Amino acid sequence: MQTRKSFIAKLSAAAAAITGLSSFKQQPMDKELKNVFIHHVYFWLKNADSKADRDKLVEGLTKLSKVKTIQNFHIGKPADTNREVIERGYAVSWMLQFANGTDQASYQTDPVHLKFVEDYSHLWSKVIVYDSVDV
Amino acid sequence: MQTRKSFIAKLSAAAAAITGLSSFKQQPMDKELKNVFIHHVYFWLKNADSKADRDKLVEGLTKLSKVKTIQNFHIGKPADTNREVIERGYAVSWMLQFANGTDQASYQTDPVHLKFVEDYSHLWSKVIVYDSVDV
Repeated sequence: MQTRKSFIAKLSAAAAAITGLSSFKQQPMDKELKNVFIHHVYFWLKNADSKADRDKLVEGLTKLSKVKTIQNFHIGKPADTNREVIERGYAVSWMLQFANGTDQASYQTDPVHLKFVEDYSHLWSKVIVYDSVDV
Repeated sequence: MQTRKSFIAKLSAAAAAITGLSSFKQQPMDKELKNVFIHHVYFWLKNADSKADRDKLVEGLTKLSKVKTIQNFHIGKPADTNREVIERGYAVSWMLQFANGTDQASYQTDPVHLKFVEDYSHLWSKVIVYDSVDV
């Protein structure tokens, strides 16, 4: 009987955990990213209109995305939006999220990153980088 | 006895559900953001060194973050990184993720956004916007 009671107690704890999870999921999601280091790079190509060169750079970034400390990444191109304040001359947007500045610093010197620069930097004429942390 | 058996059956199902959740969490996450519209705005303040004005703008952005179509957002400031390619003259980074361009367009004309511009645009001297979609 002791064993069965213990079994029921464990399952009860499990059920309580599920209840906790369920109520968590029903709450509105927190949309705010906190405790992140956002490293956003915009690349201008030497051959600005070359689809082949853009594809090549995207190939390189896809390899680069394997760096372990990267939490999330996005490879983008300019959207169709067009207003005076919008910069749309770049060819590729490379947005990375890291847990902190230390992880971003280690990414800069990661062999995968150094190899990326070696193999693909001939493609771009300019990069602008914006590194942002929580206010 | 029937009741107790039924109780145990339910708890067992609950425990199985927990096991399922756990194994899901152990799988490697897909780090690539896909099917997103990234709207990244950088604000330069008229009073570039005013902490009070930056706080005020952050207050405004926090209100603005309530717009329903925003999936995720980050309010940032320049990190400590400092290399030639890094732009660090802006005061506030405002990064938004939308599901698509339609949602971003509706955000532009959302009453909450218009009110934000009305109440806070006196604070900034310049904005640069980068709108990016999947390559």
